Amino acid sequence: MQKPFLQVLSPDETRNLITEFPELPAETSSLEDSLFRVLAEPVTAREDSPRFDRSTMDGFAVRSVDTFGATESAPALFHIVGEIAMGEVHDTVLKKGQAVRIWTGGALPAAADSVVMVEHAEEVDRNTVEVLRAVAPFDNVVRRGEDFKEGETLLEAGHRLRPQDLGLLAAMGRRTVRVFKKPAVAIISSGDEIVPIDQEPPPGCVRDVNRYTLSAMVREAHAEPVWIGIATDDLKTLTSLIQKAMQAADMVIVSGGSSMGARDHVIEAIQSHTNAKILVHGVSVSPGKPLILAKIGSIPVLGLPGHPVSAMVCFEQFVTCLCRRLEGEEVAQPFLRPTVQSFLSRNVPSKEGRTDFVRVRLQSMDGKIAAIPVPGKSGVISAMVRAHGYIVIGADCEGAYKGDSVIVSLFADWMGGNLEKEYLSRYEAACRGTGHIFETPQQEKISGI
Amino acid sequence: MQKPFLQVLSPDETRNLITEFPELPAETSSLEDSLFRVLAEPVTAREDSPRFDRSTMDGFAVRSVDTFGATESAPALFHIVGEIAMGEVHDTVLKKGQAVRIWTGGALPAAADSVVMVEHAEEVDRNTVEVLRAVAPFDNVVRRGEDFKEGETLLEAGHRLRPQDLGLLAAMGRRTVRVFKKPAVAIISSGDEIVPIDQEPPPGCVRDVNRYTLSAMVREAHAEPVWIGIATDDLKTLTSLIQKAMQAADMVIVSGGSSMGARDHVIEAIQSHTNAKILVHGVSVSPGKPLILAKIGSIPVLGLPGHPVSAMVCFEQFVTCLCRRLEGEEVAQPFLRPTVQSFLSRNVPSKEGRTDFVRVRLQSMDGKIAAIPVPGKSGVISAMVRAHGYIVIGADCEGAYKGDSVIVSLFADWMGGNLEKEYLSRYEAACRGTGHIFETPQQEKISGI
Repeated sequence: MQKPFLQVLSPDETRNLITEFPELPAETSSLEDSLFRVLAEPVTAREDSPRFDRSTMDGFAVRSVDTFGATESAPALFHIVGEIAMGEVHDTVLKKGQAVRIWTGGALPAAADSVVMVEHAEEVDRNTVEVLRAVAPFDNVVRRGEDFKEGETLLEAGHRLRPQDLGLLAAMGRRTVRVFKKPAVAIISSGDEIVPIDQEPPPGCVRDVNRYTLSAMVREAHAEPVWIGIATDDLKTLTSLIQKAMQAADMVIVSGGSSMGARDHVIEAIQSHTNAKILVHGVSVSPGKPLILAKIGSIPVLGLPGHPVSAMVCFEQFVTCLCRRLEGEEVAQPFLRPTVQSFLSRNVPSKEGRTDFVRVRLQSMDGKIAAIPVPGKSGVISAMVRAHGYIVIGADCEGAYKGDSVIVSLFADWMGGNLEKEYLSRYEAACRGTGHIFETPQQEKISGI
Repeated sequence: MQKPFLQVLSPDETRNLITEFPELPAETSSLEDSLFRVLAEPVTAREDSPRFDRSTMDGFAVRSVDTFGATESAPALFHIVGEIAMGEVHDTVLKKGQAVRIWTGGALPAAADSVVMVEHAEEVDRNTVEVLRAVAPFDNVVRRGEDFKEGETLLEAGHRLRPQDLGLLAAMGRRTVRVFKKPAVAIISSGDEIVPIDQEPPPGCVRDVNRYTLSAMVREAHAEPVWIGIATDDLKTLTSLIQKAMQAADMVIVSGGSSMGARDHVIEAIQSHTNAKILVHGVSVSPGKPLILAKIGSIPVLGLPGHPVSAMVCFEQFVTCLCRRLEGEEVAQPFLRPTVQSFLSRNVPSKEGRTDFVRVRLQSMDGKIAAIPVPGKSGVISAMVRAHGYIVIGADCEGAYKGDSVIVSLFADWMGGNLEKEYLSRYEAACRGTGHIFETPQQEKISGI
């Protein structure tokens, strides 16, 4: 007989426990290395940007008041008193009726408050220009401090840096930034039957799949995988590999041996460390129920099921959250995935009280995108390969019906080939600038299913 | 006066031209280095997986026929004739009424066709077990070849590898895989007023923002940035830096100087190379109109506007497509981004014939998530920093109205902090396993706006 799980928690209860882990220490990182890292300090501007009134157009810097009333039939005449060299400041103070030639990005001379676009100016001769349209103060100008002002806090600690955030830091002249350490995640595969991929598996053995799927998911979560090794199904080996992993990393993942069978030693191996505390053993998800979340000291140690699909679901739902937490984010949720509105191709039964992750393949069907559940046991990696994403059947549902509208979370930010083309042209053209998002929003198109 | 653009193309026309570029050569890559790389060859199984019938449970391997009719009140009695060691093949051929102890992942002995879960077995003594429930043939078994069969093609050339795809390759014993070369993308910033970030900008100068935003976007597109340098606004410097870039990379991006003004030399610099062909100069998008797409030989050379926001929009809409194409993908579309259904907080005017990318900040408002357009000229990087994503107003629209339902494409796969929590709990809880996706689909919740 198998021992029962200690206490099966819900996914949300499990994620709430994750928020208790402390973030890793902060470190200094160069801008180049800081993409998708998490700020450990707020970012406050030390100066105005730009530091001068800056033209956004090629044209003529003028005092706007001198253009008031100008039209094509009654242009305002200006005397051209110079040209602003790029990257320099002109020392002229503009007087009434004077203009200075200026380029996009150039600094306005003193007393000028606006720029007349070259398209609205007619040069009469080298020294004279007719302005065909009036400009208001600050037209075609980025004013000093308009991008940001000295003392302004633009990004808060806990913010994960996007490309534009690095651009902002560059604009501030920051060469480095304080970020939280990127989590190093140790990976152990366990099982007497598991062999490395460069070895021909003897009869009864299989190659190590989880090492590769989980390492890749660690990278996808903006963390750093650290491969420890394959543990045989004995307590001593497992305990010592976990020990080794704790010295090499900020988090430890063991796949396999997380259930309650006689050969499942992960719980025991964790408990054999001093300061070990089991937080979770068993989560009401399918696949992925035999999840272990523990801490040894302050280091999170996870036991994931050995079946590749179960291990991936647990990673997506819980390990990514932990990576985010260790990196200083407050959110204990998986990263947001691109989603596709779709309809189910057949009934999917489920059990109340259990959250089901159903792998689906998307396919064009009757002019719509159908979500077709991919058959395959959780030990079968090809079921994940055939799927484009997954749908979630909540714990309070007894299943979903054929034709139900569902939100499919995609495994990646692409679907590839014809499906993506079709999807984009049919449903999301609007998001690519070719559709009618406001006349026929996505949800109306789909609600007819 | 400014010269007019040669011919302004639509975004789709521009992307169609991108499909003409040839993919880069294939190379061999280790599994560890192949995440998000694109297959240059189909992946075909060289053997069955698993190579033996494999138990998915701890329990007893039996001949299913011997369990037929078994119930808790009338259990079937089995003689335990051994135990399957993990990673080994048992040489027994099961006879009528015999059972063998087996573990999850173990190989079934000859003649056994199913496994009775340990939960449905009652051990009477060391040699005898009562089976309390009948099993059908192949219950709790992954059959030989059930994951994949010899000769089966599971992934096609042009497929970008996800974590599970690496797992599949591992299951096949593949240590390396043929993928297309990762595009090296050369980056040049141009403008007399641009200074490196480690330099204090003299009056009238600004720091180089585009180097950092564009390099980061190259990484985000799974390609490799190569920094070339800052070009002053003269034809000779620009021409020689483009020359240098072509030797160092598979694609060249110049930001700044792409328009038609007297100081905009990128078109001329491209044309001064032999074999240069301008494919596009001017696209009907805002911001980002002064885009140049050219080829010199077979190398794509792009001129992006110098304004940071315009440059990022052009990158998102066109450069990512080119990265995908060079890496062997057929799809000439940006990567799919996570999206949030939202409603507009105010009217947004637009021009027919032009596709507008409107930066928006998401904010909780009246129990819904509002999309608030972020003010700010395209030269202002902080407008991108304040925004969570963008909405698209199609070329055939004259604008969008306050309260319109819109799809916001997020700049990243997170929003951070409270907004993400709120978003998830309100609208997408279903996708996290805590909601009622089938009773109250997302679109119904929103349609009341």
